[in-house]
Amino acid sequence: MSLQLPPIAAPGDRLDRVGTPALLIDLDAFEHNLAQMAEFAARHKVALRPHAKAHKAPAIAHAQLARGAAGICCQKLSEAYPFAAAGIQSIHISNEFIGADKVAMAVALAGHVALSVCADDVAQVAALGAAASQAGVSIAVLPEVDVGQGRCGVDSADALSALVDAIARHRGLCFGGLQAYHGGIQHQDDWAGRRSAAGRAADATAAHVRHLEARGVRCGVVTGGGTGTVEFDAASGVYTEIQPGSYVFMDRHYGSLAWEGELRWRHSLFIAATIMSQARPGMAVCDAGLKSVAVDSGLPRLWPAERADQLRYTAANDEHGMLQVLAGDAHGLLGERLLLVPGHCDPTANLYDQYVGFRGERVECVWPIAARGLSR
Amino acid sequence: MSLQLPPIAAPGDRLDRVGTPALLIDLDAFEHNLAQMAEFAARHKVALRPHAKAHKAPAIAHAQLARGAAGICCQKLSEAYPFAAAGIQSIHISNEFIGADKVAMAVALAGHVALSVCADDVAQVAALGAAASQAGVSIAVLPEVDVGQGRCGVDSADALSALVDAIARHRGLCFGGLQAYHGGIQHQDDWAGRRSAAGRAADATAAHVRHLEARGVRCGVVTGGGTGTVEFDAASGVYTEIQPGSYVFMDRHYGSLAWEGELRWRHSLFIAATIMSQARPGMAVCDAGLKSVAVDSGLPRLWPAERADQLRYTAANDEHGMLQVLAGDAHGLLGERLLLVPGHCDPTANLYDQYVGFRGERVECVWPIAARGLSR
Repeated sequence: MSLQLPPIAAPGDRLDRVGTPALLIDLDAFEHNLAQMAEFAARHKVALRPHAKAHKAPAIAHAQLARGAAGICCQKLSEAYPFAAAGIQSIHISNEFIGADKVAMAVALAGHVALSVCADDVAQVAALGAAASQAGVSIAVLPEVDVGQGRCGVDSADALSALVDAIARHRGLCFGGLQAYHGGIQHQDDWAGRRSAAGRAADATAAHVRHLEARGVRCGVVTGGGTGTVEFDAASGVYTEIQPGSYVFMDRHYGSLAWEGELRWRHSLFIAATIMSQARPGMAVCDAGLKSVAVDSGLPRLWPAERADQLRYTAANDEHGMLQVLAGDAHGLLGERLLLVPGHCDPTANLYDQYVGFRGERVECVWPIAARGLSR
Repeated sequence: MSLQLPPIAAPGDRLDRVGTPALLIDLDAFEHNLAQMAEFAARHKVALRPHAKAHKAPAIAHAQLARGAAGICCQKLSEAYPFAAAGIQSIHISNEFIGADKVAMAVALAGHVALSVCADDVAQVAALGAAASQAGVSIAVLPEVDVGQGRCGVDSADALSALVDAIARHRGLCFGGLQAYHGGIQHQDDWAGRRSAAGRAADATAAHVRHLEARGVRCGVVTGGGTGTVEFDAASGVYTEIQPGSYVFMDRHYGSLAWEGELRWRHSLFIAATIMSQARPGMAVCDAGLKSVAVDSGLPRLWPAERADQLRYTAANDEHGMLQVLAGDAHGLLGERLLLVPGHCDPTANLYDQYVGFRGERVECVWPIAARGLSR
């Protein structure tokens, strides 16, 4: 008899029978988030190109496209492969890359999908342009402008012009517009402060657009924005396209921000865990530690809020989550099933091979996280 | 033409052609670490049962067994499956579990390998005992004693006796000895302090052993110890078996401890990364962020030490690693390949599907990380 790991869950299963740790999606909350963003983008007449780095699952990308998304973003070339294989036709790599292996991946992808990529150095453009021209494919290049984050992107008009000129030198490349994203302000707590910061980023972006227009270069696409600033970005009149990713899940960190505008999100991503040890009253240990939840943006919190008031996740070891009893029964916790809201959705999803989608008390779907671990 | 992601590397490839980010093993350093631990355990006449949670790769477990290891530890039942499938005959689950799905996995594993598990509550024993007896398999249960960590494990003689009695009630279970591990002292910086703390843990363990002996119960196995305390544990005369895991890799955090005894480790685990953006002098951005390196125990450091003196990894975004130029050339870094020593090996290895083993400038092997993500 061969040894086969049992599947994590199957449609129709009772939710409380799903083996833990498991990554769950509350489909009602998820669909609320999807619909709200789709409606918001449509009303503001900006294209919605959700970022697939948050979820890494073709099934979710298809759900976004079915509600009107124009395509998806990926952050890495390898990440785009399973989406291309699943029939996603338009993929924007919102990031820079260099090296022969990366150029080969871009050219291969461009043979299958409408591909756009970013660049912030003429050396990136030169390598890609030579390969794309030789292969007979066409890749849109969007120079990235630094609008305040100080990470990637050029910040001078001269450097931007040099990139536009470099792109024009290659038959296999075309100028696609601008990438402008300020990751550093997405998680600013206060809503008015976030609005001001997003306004400054939009102003910086607009200045680059005007500079190119003065040179006779029109930006067909101006793409950027994340979940934290998307309501301001969409209304700015600067961006033609928005790139939010985390909105589908609304993790603990994003959920803790002030949301004083019209957008109201719901937590849809949870980790199901089990208390597998309670050796003494007042504390307990669950089976979800560092390998089951990312803690870079804070520890997970129990769900629903009433249980979080009683039990706190206080530390993550590799395979153990430490819990402290704040109120309620200090004994008899062994075997209790918990729902945890992760601090940060992107790296948490990257730990799992499947999402278990549920509605009410039943499993409705199991979705492969096909791009998990694809970071090249 | 179908779209197929190119393999990360193949034996014989030049190391500088491996696509990044990639998880590398310096095989010379790795084999030094393996040999040193095997020799050390043999000399102290303790069994070596390395922890597979650190590496999750059957190829590494086989390398440890080939040098005399008695078997392996796993931390989760699902984690043990690929090792059992790869022919590892003796597996100890050094952790507690509860629930019908977990009991079913333990029984299935026990049909294929010599399995031992831990317990710290009679409820865990009752559920497992009923299932094991019914299935006609035999599982050794090692009660876990808390020797100072305050995580899992009983800390009273009465609770330990109750567990031993509970185990004896089931035909499918047998008492296997004691699990005694103090995770909290493994990373204590100073060597003498670590020695004292390990001594106290060993004393606490010895008291439990004596208590059981006074009841006529002999502990065939007393197992515990990690990389940080293994030299003291092995020499204590209390443990019959040691469970180090990280020693094969020696991550940045373990490597930063004082090692004043006879053990001298080498870093063998590295992340290969590429600088893919340098938009301004004095800083740079590489392609290895939170999805390519765990940062719970500190940021990665560049390797070798001379390069770390010039370039510092200062922040991890999801897919970007921020670098600051401390000395040397502040320009022209685009395309440079970096080696990073991760802060914490276990959760870093859990992000990748393969190790790329190299010797000198050539790839020698590609090892699947078959238990990656198996946290149930």
